[in-house]
Amino acid sequence: MNLAGVFAPVPTPFDDGDRVDTARLRAALLRWVTRPLTGFVVLGSNGEAVLMDDFECDQVVAAAREAVPRDRVFIVGTGRESTQGAIKASKRAAEHGADAVLVRTPGFFKNQMTSDAFVRHYTAVADASPVPVLLYNFTALTGVNLLPAAVERLAPHPNIIGMKESGGDVAQIMDLVSGTPADFRVLAGSAATFYPMLCVGATGGILALGCALPEPCMRLFELTRAGRHDEALALQRQLVPVARLLGSTHGVPGLKAALNLLGYDVGVPRPPLAPLAASALPALRDALAHFEEIPA
Amino acid sequence: MNLAGVFAPVPTPFDDGDRVDTARLRAALLRWVTRPLTGFVVLGSNGEAVLMDDFECDQVVAAAREAVPRDRVFIVGTGRESTQGAIKASKRAAEHGADAVLVRTPGFFKNQMTSDAFVRHYTAVADASPVPVLLYNFTALTGVNLLPAAVERLAPHPNIIGMKESGGDVAQIMDLVSGTPADFRVLAGSAATFYPMLCVGATGGILALGCALPEPCMRLFELTRAGRHDEALALQRQLVPVARLLGSTHGVPGLKAALNLLGYDVGVPRPPLAPLAASALPALRDALAHFEEIPA
Amino acid sequence: MNLAGVFAPVPTPFDDGDRVDTARLRAALLRWVTRPLTGFVVLGSNGEAVLMDDFECDQVVAAAREAVPRDRVFIVGTGRESTQGAIKASKRAAEHGADAVLVRTPGFFKNQMTSDAFVRHYTAVADASPVPVLLYNFTALTGVNLLPAAVERLAPHPNIIGMKESGGDVAQIMDLVSGTPADFRVLAGSAATFYPMLCVGATGGILALGCALPEPCMRLFELTRAGRHDEALALQRQLVPVARLLGSTHGVPGLKAALNLLGYDVGVPRPPLAPLAASALPALRDALAHFEEIPA
Amino acid sequence: MNLAGVFAPVPTPFDDGDRVDTARLRAALLRWVTRPLTGFVVLGSNGEAVLMDDFECDQVVAAAREAVPRDRVFIVGTGRESTQGAIKASKRAAEHGADAVLVRTPGFFKNQMTSDAFVRHYTAVADASPVPVLLYNFTALTGVNLLPAAVERLAPHPNIIGMKESGGDVAQIMDLVSGTPADFRVLAGSAATFYPMLCVGATGGILALGCALPEPCMRLFELTRAGRHDEALALQRQLVPVARLLGSTHGVPGLKAALNLLGYDVGVPRPPLAPLAASALPALRDALAHFEEIPA
Repeated sequence: MNLAGVFAPVPTPFDDGDRVDTARLRAALLRWVTRPLTGFVVLGSNGEAVLMDDFECDQVVAAAREAVPRDRVFIVGTGRESTQGAIKASKRAAEHGADAVLVRTPGFFKNQMTSDAFVRHYTAVADASPVPVLLYNFTALTGVNLLPAAVERLAPHPNIIGMKESGGDVAQIMDLVSGTPADFRVLAGSAATFYPMLCVGATGGILALGCALPEPCMRLFELTRAGRHDEALALQRQLVPVARLLGSTHGVPGLKAALNLLGYDVGVPRPPLAPLAASALPALRDALAHFEEIPA
Repeated sequence: MNLAGVFAPVPTPFDDGDRVDTARLRAALLRWVTRPLTGFVVLGSNGEAVLMDDFECDQVVAAAREAVPRDRVFIVGTGRESTQGAIKASKRAAEHGADAVLVRTPGFFKNQMTSDAFVRHYTAVADASPVPVLLYNFTALTGVNLLPAAVERLAPHPNIIGMKESGGDVAQIMDLVSGTPADFRVLAGSAATFYPMLCVGATGGILALGCALPEPCMRLFELTRAGRHDEALALQRQLVPVARLLGSTHGVPGLKAALNLLGYDVGVPRPPLAPLAASALPALRDALAHFEEIPA
Repeated sequence: MNLAGVFAPVPTPFDDGDRVDTARLRAALLRWVTRPLTGFVVLGSNGEAVLMDDFECDQVVAAAREAVPRDRVFIVGTGRESTQGAIKASKRAAEHGADAVLVRTPGFFKNQMTSDAFVRHYTAVADASPVPVLLYNFTALTGVNLLPAAVERLAPHPNIIGMKESGGDVAQIMDLVSGTPADFRVLAGSAATFYPMLCVGATGGILALGCALPEPCMRLFELTRAGRHDEALALQRQLVPVARLLGSTHGVPGLKAALNLLGYDVGVPRPPLAPLAASALPALRDALAHFEEIPA
Repeated sequence: MNLAGVFAPVPTPFDDGDRVDTARLRAALLRWVTRPLTGFVVLGSNGEAVLMDDFECDQVVAAAREAVPRDRVFIVGTGRESTQGAIKASKRAAEHGADAVLVRTPGFFKNQMTSDAFVRHYTAVADASPVPVLLYNFTALTGVNLLPAAVERLAPHPNIIGMKESGGDVAQIMDLVSGTPADFRVLAGSAATFYPMLCVGATGGILALGCALPEPCMRLFELTRAGRHDEALALQRQLVPVARLLGSTHGVPGLKAALNLLGYDVGVPRPPLAPLAASALPALRDALAHFEEIPA
């Protein structure tokens, strides 16, 4: 499975009645598959998976699988707070065609989420999952940290093939790479620091910005891999402002607004998330227009 | 509805196959209803609700409702990340006999969880819920803070009758009381600071310790209400160590271990939570034995 | 030494040339000593001691000592990052007439400031100081926490008579009182939570608000001591907004602006602190006017 | 002035009577100047400057200046909490031969340390300093953050030539470089992340590890500058463990212990800092022995 490159964590379209809209999802994916993207993630954080029920999740996976060709990696987010919940979701994702599952750490009972707890949890999920497992750490949202020491214990599991680390701490990425075998893949989660993360050993990224601007993200990846560091750094600097608008600044509402501007028609976020304020649109449009033509 | 007093946030028993065990829940509740407790909360944080699916939640509510007499307040936790999820859960809880619902803040998309978002979320839930709504803020677990300014905007809603504030910040409790009408009830969530929270205007508490040691918790409440502050403070000091063992130190595993020691038979936590380490039991037993006889 | 009551942590006036102005300090103190205040602290955090050199500190102590009658407790802040610095400052303060010294924790080398380090530091200072020592914890400014466990080890020292705890964590105050002998005095540092801190065992407070509004602060203390809790809570609620303006909101610039409004002529803060913005004055004036007549 | 390379932030030796020992300092520097180091910093955080008085600081600067040849950059730390204190210290440092001063942010009055306050402070210091000024941000110790937006406003000042950023946030370093002119120098402060910081535009580092292991640190710098990224990353990974022992793990006590093992005779830290525990020495010795022979 090719985990070196840029993955798009695609959003879930909802219709005006706050229902999952699989037709829109398929349409958007049919356009995305024409772009230079290594693969796709559905039901990730950007996919608003935590706002959806299991039935809706199944719908999304089935619809997306139809649109994503077999030569692209198709990953499904299946993190749940309970171990049995994550196992069930992973089995369902596999039935619906996932190539791999991306399992966010449980994080509710923070004091109890020790490295031992994570090792138990992920071992049980990886033992049971019909498809390979990617660990997933997103401390800014979960409030817990899957430490390199825990990942080191999990990496030898034959069904755990890598992880996504969404944090911006370059030292932690370096430790993850240092502490795991060469074939364990560490994917970065932040486009604003993609270049330095690649420098220290990340093999690619799952980047919200990859949905909106696939070509520059992929070009940044390839420049770095080719050792053209000066060009890579220059491109990274150009991408920082727009990466932040779609990430820390506006989150899912910003990503959906950007995609709608770019013609993807992904609808609005699900409440309690609200659509991006109209006052924020001009700056977003300007930031995108440096890289891609915005339809009128 | 009487929201002045001590409420027990009861745990959910699981059997050896990691299934909800409603028979054990009923048995425990039939004992709890003989104790001086103002009411009961199921499917709260201590009820491991985030580890359960909707069907299991319904089972718990139905089983508990049978055991709790009509003259005790019966509250069901129905917080979900999505607004529509919280509405559906509240409707189901009402169908199964809840007197009120306790709705924890959504907290996953932290940057987007502004006061405006909370006001929209809770207004929609309160508009739709067939039974009265209690707001619920637990910053240590959710990573978001439902600020007094937002509560002030929500308190006039006719179907929002109060809130649970689990934080230990006495200034925030004071602000919540100051900023809301006299009939809006603020319940504390931490037994280790119950007395000072009552001093500044909390009308009661939803206390894990109330499951294990109902009499001392209720006595602390009544001493304070009677203006016997010296005795209340002395009792509060005695309760601090055991309150911490069941709260910040050991969490749900500590609460379940304590209840099992006291003869309640509530089983083990659901993975990824693990049973309390055997090495921690003697200190727990000693702490409880100051207040209640421990069966051999 | 009477450590039960309200202490005013007086600011240090600077003249237009950024020099310590002892004449203004004396004049302000001669007015303060006519008010109901248990004692005075110079060179505390509000005294901008960290912005002054040792010679200036000596000037302030000498000038203040002249103005403060012997029947009021006169405390001098002598915290320094080095142990020998704190010892020298304490000896100088004693020579200039301090009744006791208030020694803020060192806090620069955060990782090394363990309980052992604090016990060594304070033991050395207390061994060497000619006058009694008060410990002083102000985590919000220092970034370190002098934990109750460390205080418990220090409290038996014959030359350590109490502490100031500036944090708003009522549980920590309760622990400090529980873990120390009855004659060890715990003073609160925040007027916005003075009443609940008194409820859990603080014997008084060193309150910036005490400089501006001594009578209401002292009245809050006395109402609580007399067991008139309802009146105390009502007064506490009234004081919260103005306490915040002089504390967390505007800090030293707010305190100095308030005192200048009230006719104390304490000048401007020392750079890099700046005088309170003119735009913030009307709200400050209104908040004070609820309690004291503001000269035109 | 050459600010591209590796600078050693040298510790201050104290003798058995807790007095500054300038003879030892000179001796250590005479050895350091034979190593490949771009320059030296005295009275930085690692120099325990916050534990020393102004007279001691002058002694250190004078003694060090004698030992450091004119073709090495000689930088003196002159940060103080007050603006006038930082100005006076900078003038004295210049008189004693400093090539530049390194001015740590004030940090005590955290709420008031806005970007405006920093701009006022540094502008006043740079206006008055006879030698060029380096800004210095060390959020982990000061609790305040000198943001890129403030640095952008300060960088055009003709007497401000660069900054030291001690944080490990690669995005912040990237922003600092992006927002300042090409001749504004950004120096990293952490050896554990030196390579990625160089990747994103840092021109060098002021590294505690540079005191203990100058050659590997300089080699990492030169490999990166030469575009030999694979070798640089491999060396960075080797350096991480020892960099942490001298940094976040053991701090100044670790650095002094390491230097004593390596034959530099820099004595013990000043209280309240304590010498490194004997139990920590073997691991430190092993970590160093990978790079340099340890005298028996």
